[in-house]
Amino acid sequence: MAGSCEEKTVAVVPNKKVVLRRHVTGFPSEEDMEIVVDTVELRVPAGLTAVLMKNLYLSCDPWMRGRMSKYAEGDVRPASEFVVGEALLNYGVGKVVDSTHPEFKAGDLVWGMSGWEEYSLITQPESLMKINHAELPLSYYTGILGMPGLTAYAGLMEVGRPKKGDFVFVSAASGAVGQLVGQLAKIAGCYVVGSAGSDEKVSLLKTKFGYDDAFNYKSEPDLGAALKRCLPDGIDIYFDNVGGETLDVALLHMRRGGRVVVCGMISQYNLEELYGVRNLFCIIPKAIRVEGFNVGGYFNMYARFEEEMAGYIKDGKVSVVEDVVEGMESAPAALVGLFSGKNVGKQLVVIARE
Amino acid sequence: MAGSCEEKTVAVVPNKKVVLRRHVTGFPSEEDMEIVVDTVELRVPAGLTAVLMKNLYLSCDPWMRGRMSKYAEGDVRPASEFVVGEALLNYGVGKVVDSTHPEFKAGDLVWGMSGWEEYSLITQPESLMKINHAELPLSYYTGILGMPGLTAYAGLMEVGRPKKGDFVFVSAASGAVGQLVGQLAKIAGCYVVGSAGSDEKVSLLKTKFGYDDAFNYKSEPDLGAALKRCLPDGIDIYFDNVGGETLDVALLHMRRGGRVVVCGMISQYNLEELYGVRNLFCIIPKAIRVEGFNVGGYFNMYARFEEEMAGYIKDGKVSVVEDVVEGMESAPAALVGLFSGKNVGKQLVVIARE
Repeated sequence: MAGSCEEKTVAVVPNKKVVLRRHVTGFPSEEDMEIVVDTVELRVPAGLTAVLMKNLYLSCDPWMRGRMSKYAEGDVRPASEFVVGEALLNYGVGKVVDSTHPEFKAGDLVWGMSGWEEYSLITQPESLMKINHAELPLSYYTGILGMPGLTAYAGLMEVGRPKKGDFVFVSAASGAVGQLVGQLAKIAGCYVVGSAGSDEKVSLLKTKFGYDDAFNYKSEPDLGAALKRCLPDGIDIYFDNVGGETLDVALLHMRRGGRVVVCGMISQYNLEELYGVRNLFCIIPKAIRVEGFNVGGYFNMYARFEEEMAGYIKDGKVSVVEDVVEGMESAPAALVGLFSGKNVGKQLVVIARE
Repeated sequence: MAGSCEEKTVAVVPNKKVVLRRHVTGFPSEEDMEIVVDTVELRVPAGLTAVLMKNLYLSCDPWMRGRMSKYAEGDVRPASEFVVGEALLNYGVGKVVDSTHPEFKAGDLVWGMSGWEEYSLITQPESLMKINHAELPLSYYTGILGMPGLTAYAGLMEVGRPKKGDFVFVSAASGAVGQLVGQLAKIAGCYVVGSAGSDEKVSLLKTKFGYDDAFNYKSEPDLGAALKRCLPDGIDIYFDNVGGETLDVALLHMRRGGRVVVCGMISQYNLEELYGVRNLFCIIPKAIRVEGFNVGGYFNMYARFEEEMAGYIKDGKVSVVEDVVEGMESAPAALVGLFSGKNVGKQLVVIARE
């Protein structure tokens, strides 16, 4: 029959994934997730405009924690909650296996929102971004050239608006976003101080990322004293990744006209009772701007960012530290580890290298 | 003798004043102040470049409370503390009695920072502003045409940046600043809701100041429910005069891209333990800007503001409600009354009408 000529044998392969076992309250644990294996046909199902993506690198980011909770009515989160029994979702790097979307073809390297699984069917392919610098490590598209990189760049440059000579303080400074904020602030001519949760990370800040000064907040008896010691003239820009007490104390040390870029509150994500910030009053006499930032509104500047950042990497102007684990089975522990600061640098999971 | 021809007889007159008797902790009381009378020579002392001003109208403003406290080291306030035994200071309206400054002459009507006394020697006359619309009630220069007016105008227009159709919420909405914020927001094409502390004030908001809706926060069992009822689609601009719980709850009702103009925190000025704001997290997913505002940086736009606001007054586009008391002896109670919401509208004290 003529029709049979159009039939192709399509491989059906196993598809290992990390699914949410139950919604999370408090700190997440590995037992909140489980590894399951189902199968996937290696083509886009008939009638769909979509991309089938083989995931190479998964990104572990603190913001995933919010999506692991059951949402209450009126809950404010940047994205919908994860579905129990389905793969977790986050930005990742992959290779197109099959595409019915005109802008993508098999073999394209892309990054964007996909699942924590070996193969993801992307039904909104316009959300994917092509990788224009495949000569750089592809894993960088989970970090410095991906969502955390754009977050650091847009948050610092568009919201923080650094001026030469500004005093900049960054919390969670060795993390995926923090390590870039510090380096970008140095490129902008600022004096940069970071806080982190171990002496090893503090050492990284000074030796690898070019921070002018840094401290281990866990061994400082008085956070205010540490800020005063490292930034005796005060803070022009506080890039906040942690919220809570650090934000509260930093507010007291802001200079007139200072900017607080509130990018993350990792100290608060697992708490049932949120920390109450008492020092907001001081934003009035000092005319301080406290601005919530999320990267969602800034993808229109991604192309410019990618070129600029790729240039910095090639010129050796920025350093990257990644915390890399191998295999789907390692992903739950890597994600959970973020919330005790176990990771050193950008946490990612290698699923496949090709 | 020739020399005696240059001598003039200069009147020495009594100078009644309100002085600070002791620094204040907690709520201020009338006993924290006292009325004293000394004398003043009705000319600028030889060798000084200064203006001797006869005070006509004193302004009572919540921000004076901060200056009544003894400051701790590192304290953050917009201005230095009042000195025990000396007259309180604030913006006021007066007439120049004598001047050795080239820009002022006897008879000029001015407003600016002066003392709570009948006559003040202004040693920084460049801080005074000439009154260009003496055809309007001079008392307006303590309110709609003075510091509170400029505060409302610059805070709303420069920091809040209203767009037509924005949903605006104003707390302490019938006060000196709030009553103008609401009217200016209406002129800008916004939907405006206010909160105040009595049914009388709520009625004023709707009937006199053109607020679209208003509520008495003291009789609302659930502030969040009140906001949801009056602003079911959320808040684009919250003009905050009170801080504390109102700020905390309003944060939850902000819309994406919303702006919180933090202009005052009258609920916090008399507390030893400040309220802890727990809902700051929501500024991240909604990209909300929370900006501290004080009028100090905006006096360069005063001339433009004065003309625009005088125009609105003459065209009947804005209404003014003043709470006027007579005489220096009434000033301490008028100031204290601000902190229990006793005043209805802009609180001021008449010292002299000419």
